[in-house]
Amino acid sequence: MSSTLGDKIKISVFGESHGNGIGVVIDGLPAGEAIDMEAVLLQMSRRAPGRDKTATPRKESDLPKILSGMLGSTLTGAPLCAVIENTNTRSGDYGNLLSQPRPGHSDYTAFVKYNAANDIRGGGHFSGRLTAPLVFAGAVCRQLLEKRGIKIAAHIESIGSVRDSRFDPVGIDTELIERLNRSSFALIDEGVEQAMRDEVEAARLDRDSVGGTIECAVTGLPAGAGEPMFDGVEGALAKAVFGIPAVKGIEFGAGFALAQMRGSQSNDPFRYRDGKVITETNNCGGILGGITDGMPVVFRAAIKPTPSISKPQKTVDLQKGENTVLEIHGRHDPCIVPRAVPVIEAVTAIAVINLL
Amino acid sequence: MSSTLGDKIKISVFGESHGNGIGVVIDGLPAGEAIDMEAVLLQMSRRAPGRDKTATPRKESDLPKILSGMLGSTLTGAPLCAVIENTNTRSGDYGNLLSQPRPGHSDYTAFVKYNAANDIRGGGHFSGRLTAPLVFAGAVCRQLLEKRGIKIAAHIESIGSVRDSRFDPVGIDTELIERLNRSSFALIDEGVEQAMRDEVEAARLDRDSVGGTIECAVTGLPAGAGEPMFDGVEGALAKAVFGIPAVKGIEFGAGFALAQMRGSQSNDPFRYRDGKVITETNNCGGILGGITDGMPVVFRAAIKPTPSISKPQKTVDLQKGENTVLEIHGRHDPCIVPRAVPVIEAVTAIAVINLL
Amino acid sequence: MSSTLGDKIKISVFGESHGNGIGVVIDGLPAGEAIDMEAVLLQMSRRAPGRDKTATPRKESDLPKILSGMLGSTLTGAPLCAVIENTNTRSGDYGNLLSQPRPGHSDYTAFVKYNAANDIRGGGHFSGRLTAPLVFAGAVCRQLLEKRGIKIAAHIESIGSVRDSRFDPVGIDTELIERLNRSSFALIDEGVEQAMRDEVEAARLDRDSVGGTIECAVTGLPAGAGEPMFDGVEGALAKAVFGIPAVKGIEFGAGFALAQMRGSQSNDPFRYRDGKVITETNNCGGILGGITDGMPVVFRAAIKPTPSISKPQKTVDLQKGENTVLEIHGRHDPCIVPRAVPVIEAVTAIAVINLL
Amino acid sequence: MSSTLGDKIKISVFGESHGNGIGVVIDGLPAGEAIDMEAVLLQMSRRAPGRDKTATPRKESDLPKILSGMLGSTLTGAPLCAVIENTNTRSGDYGNLLSQPRPGHSDYTAFVKYNAANDIRGGGHFSGRLTAPLVFAGAVCRQLLEKRGIKIAAHIESIGSVRDSRFDPVGIDTELIERLNRSSFALIDEGVEQAMRDEVEAARLDRDSVGGTIECAVTGLPAGAGEPMFDGVEGALAKAVFGIPAVKGIEFGAGFALAQMRGSQSNDPFRYRDGKVITETNNCGGILGGITDGMPVVFRAAIKPTPSISKPQKTVDLQKGENTVLEIHGRHDPCIVPRAVPVIEAVTAIAVINLL
Repeated sequence: MSSTLGDKIKISVFGESHGNGIGVVIDGLPAGEAIDMEAVLLQMSRRAPGRDKTATPRKESDLPKILSGMLGSTLTGAPLCAVIENTNTRSGDYGNLLSQPRPGHSDYTAFVKYNAANDIRGGGHFSGRLTAPLVFAGAVCRQLLEKRGIKIAAHIESIGSVRDSRFDPVGIDTELIERLNRSSFALIDEGVEQAMRDEVEAARLDRDSVGGTIECAVTGLPAGAGEPMFDGVEGALAKAVFGIPAVKGIEFGAGFALAQMRGSQSNDPFRYRDGKVITETNNCGGILGGITDGMPVVFRAAIKPTPSISKPQKTVDLQKGENTVLEIHGRHDPCIVPRAVPVIEAVTAIAVINLL
Repeated sequence: MSSTLGDKIKISVFGESHGNGIGVVIDGLPAGEAIDMEAVLLQMSRRAPGRDKTATPRKESDLPKILSGMLGSTLTGAPLCAVIENTNTRSGDYGNLLSQPRPGHSDYTAFVKYNAANDIRGGGHFSGRLTAPLVFAGAVCRQLLEKRGIKIAAHIESIGSVRDSRFDPVGIDTELIERLNRSSFALIDEGVEQAMRDEVEAARLDRDSVGGTIECAVTGLPAGAGEPMFDGVEGALAKAVFGIPAVKGIEFGAGFALAQMRGSQSNDPFRYRDGKVITETNNCGGILGGITDGMPVVFRAAIKPTPSISKPQKTVDLQKGENTVLEIHGRHDPCIVPRAVPVIEAVTAIAVINLL
Repeated sequence: MSSTLGDKIKISVFGESHGNGIGVVIDGLPAGEAIDMEAVLLQMSRRAPGRDKTATPRKESDLPKILSGMLGSTLTGAPLCAVIENTNTRSGDYGNLLSQPRPGHSDYTAFVKYNAANDIRGGGHFSGRLTAPLVFAGAVCRQLLEKRGIKIAAHIESIGSVRDSRFDPVGIDTELIERLNRSSFALIDEGVEQAMRDEVEAARLDRDSVGGTIECAVTGLPAGAGEPMFDGVEGALAKAVFGIPAVKGIEFGAGFALAQMRGSQSNDPFRYRDGKVITETNNCGGILGGITDGMPVVFRAAIKPTPSISKPQKTVDLQKGENTVLEIHGRHDPCIVPRAVPVIEAVTAIAVINLL
Repeated sequence: MSSTLGDKIKISVFGESHGNGIGVVIDGLPAGEAIDMEAVLLQMSRRAPGRDKTATPRKESDLPKILSGMLGSTLTGAPLCAVIENTNTRSGDYGNLLSQPRPGHSDYTAFVKYNAANDIRGGGHFSGRLTAPLVFAGAVCRQLLEKRGIKIAAHIESIGSVRDSRFDPVGIDTELIERLNRSSFALIDEGVEQAMRDEVEAARLDRDSVGGTIECAVTGLPAGAGEPMFDGVEGALAKAVFGIPAVKGIEFGAGFALAQMRGSQSNDPFRYRDGKVITETNNCGGILGGITDGMPVVFRAAIKPTPSISKPQKTVDLQKGENTVLEIHGRHDPCIVPRAVPVIEAVTAIAVINLL
């Protein structure tokens, strides 16, 4: 299993949904920088469950305990380890999953790979709960980036058929970024919130779930970050973002829409503005030849519907070797998209800091 | 610059469009396996230019010379180095690019990153020509995979607004795979070829270019390949595919369409068939929790239109520090999608062999 | 800072001598294997301080708490995280070290590198105490190796001028290995123990310290492990062993003595014994061309004297910018060689498991 | 097989002794720097055979051809590939080695690992000839280091029982460095050259070979390079140096002699000199806690006698499955120590540039 990301600042995530604790080791952080732990906790609270009806009713304090790497509020340069204790577990809910894999979930592939040794209670290491330490790590990296003028913001671009506006890819307002960074239901156009919540509630009442898309932007990145070919910015971000369970697609700039364009439409004209080279449009998502061009880096990720639904579903019984029907009990998010927003931002922060 | 891919079988690509030669070192190949060089050359010829009006009229023999790693037709286990000499260069065509970056191309970002030292003639190391050694490396890896029952096939899913059929994601015919593997204009439904060629020709006559999408499938992969989180199959394939210039999006299985689904639609039901666990649908693209489930792995990549068009375009003059208009001369593909098909297959082969 | 080792089974160590806790994340362990935690604790107790006059009188329970990666006594395949809480700290002892670096210690280089942000109390992340989680990780890896017939044993080859016998490099007795594996003052010839303890006690009474050498052997490794050139067995073991503070040299087989030999002396003749190829001598230390030859892998490491001595020493005051004399208080081992034996075994186990 | 070194500037070596060619790809070089190719060729000539009776009479022009990565004499930032064609091969000399492995050589381990597919003629990829591209790569890296004030020099510390003086570890003369850098029989005390050559000639007349030691120093390294624990300077240099066939030991500073010292002897006192912190002695070899302290980095490597000797030797016949006696014909160095000096410097340069 490989739960590590980054080669300069390395993140190593550990923990299982219902074990003693989950956490992260961050190796390679610069010594002497102050970290605002309140700001870290704000990011973690955006991901935490239990806020409203879009999320699982399970409550976790999710307060990380720092074991090493900080002296007071300052990074020492040694690996930073943060641990979150697991409390409030109800593993009895997951009994039958050991033999009956949930469709759309990793139960079956984990069974094949780990010979039934995977701690399947609550998804084991595959649990979405493991994104909590990712958000912690991302929040630390993000503060280092912000000191260098680099900001990251994401929003719910769509849930089901309800869509938010998109970022203006050639100029993203600082106020908008700050508002999104504080929001636990992040939208550019807050007027669509109710319609989105209705979409989620409808799925929940149907014992079903619903997917969506998240758009993320990175501003303030200097031109010249990234490498051509296999260490390009697209590849680095894609590797990080596909590390989040449920992401099944990513596109940069105009993305799949480029496939239907002519070159004369898709090429972003270069211009001088205030002595600086900019592009008039940003169909390339701020990346040319794998390298940043100084414009905002913009991408969208597709989030599949939560696979854990309480509707009866066709599956197999691996012990009996026969087809069966599964009804999942337990607590599940009918839509993880709002809570995935700070996770997308977090892995983006980790990937970006490793580009610099 | 980082032109290396893989951690078990490592590919290191070198060369610049108009230098002495281009090539690749493949480190980590198993000793004692026979390689069919005719089959390798067939793959390279699918990518080679000069075939018809969809491609640049530049001709290259593109015959690789093996410097090491083979004794006769057998791998020795030592790093395999193959070199392709560059001939037929006309670097005079690229004179003004040194100061006037082509929109949509990496000229500007390479200028920022490499302080004008990049060999810009023909795109330097960023040139699409560097995909030739990638196809060589992929063709070698592919033969090793085929001996283990793993096949890779891709086709042009769309050019502009013209669309091919998609793979049946739960069962891909071996005959289809073999036909696609030999084709230099690979289509499932060959009836759309003329319409696609017309779309390209129309762009060419407009001194313009056009984009498209490519769909790729990997069959025969056992369940259990890949790792959860950051070494998942999606991330590994995405990193490889985004290493190809012009790719701006990737989606697995139903991809972005999942965002509008309910979980009850997107979850792929497990069933027993002939004693083996299969899924009735394949919306997850053969990957659950980052790990293969034994069904075909299916993904689609978005290819942006060739940025080099001969229409006049707005750009900047970096030496004069002013806005200007650029007309690009030289030889360019109005559509690289057909030639990108074997390149997608090649990087897929390299990524897949590193999963096993 | 980089406290990670291995690319298949990755060890990430964290913690500072006097922080909240120290520990290790082990990523990549195989699922389903049982771990004997008693055997792990035995190895940890061999390294633990407070046993006798050769070691620091500081006492630590050093009981690791497993946060993840195990279900009962079985590995789940998820990253295993073990944490040891820090208790019994007396950081007041280290006050003046912040400005007056101890000769032979990393205080000065940590000061330069981390701009005084390093948590210098007790050596921070550089503390020898960080070897406790290494021994934990090594003990886990070792059990996996033992199931595959691979055993690791080390002994004190010398302390100061007192020498133990060396391993017979062509045949190491299983009983000897098991005896050494249980010993906290591991010697082949137990008759030299008193002389060694006298050497340490003499140094202690002089407010001084003393160095030594450790010899380590790995038996049961199949021929063919390792790679030529930069991923050879020597390089892999050396990287692991030099990760232990205080190691300043390593030699394989006859090592530096080879430099004075003729080829006809140093070459190990091949012979058939019981249908298996063996060598009559083992001057190469079981490694030819970076690859194991099936004979025991044997190496020796030089351990410098503990740099923390209570004798007055010349140093600088970095705040005052002047020369000064330092007297170190606090608790220190006059000789770390006995306690370094299980640490050498541990990093060897980690390196060896990554070769297979 | 893994013939790659470095993670920032990556070296990938390819080639077999008697194949079409050997060479190296260097990925990650900075764009825009001028390389003095004459200086590179001088380093390569120091390693080249055929100079005198200490070396094999085989002659190779060894002139590297640059395929990519340079435009004129300037690095473009793209991977630099240099190829040396193989000429003057006499592979008939090696016929019986396919079944009768040479003692002390990698024939047997390569046979086990590569199932007889290794190109054994002249040692295949294991050949000492592969050090030629290493010297090329090291010479390029070295020029980049020299521009930053970092110099590397090595000398023959001993051949058999004849010893040269050692470096003064606290102050190494620039003139001495420059003289050693030009020498093909590098000695501090040139008066011992004849005695060393006599030692080699005596071995040759006995159809035998002889080993030795090489001492290497790096000056001008700033304090603070390297990382604690597993990415320390000792580990990085050891991994690089053990990549050279025939190296069986390495020690830093006083090395194995430290094992017999007291801490009061081995600790290097800090002092201010001209406002800069220095150490009065340098027993630690310029490295404390894995990090440079600003003093010269000094290490010694043990080189085993050339295993290829023409004396009859006991070995096995792997095809017949029986013991036999081998007489090796072909051309062999009775002592590779002089030619290994520039190779040690080269891998040191590659390792050091990756520390910065």
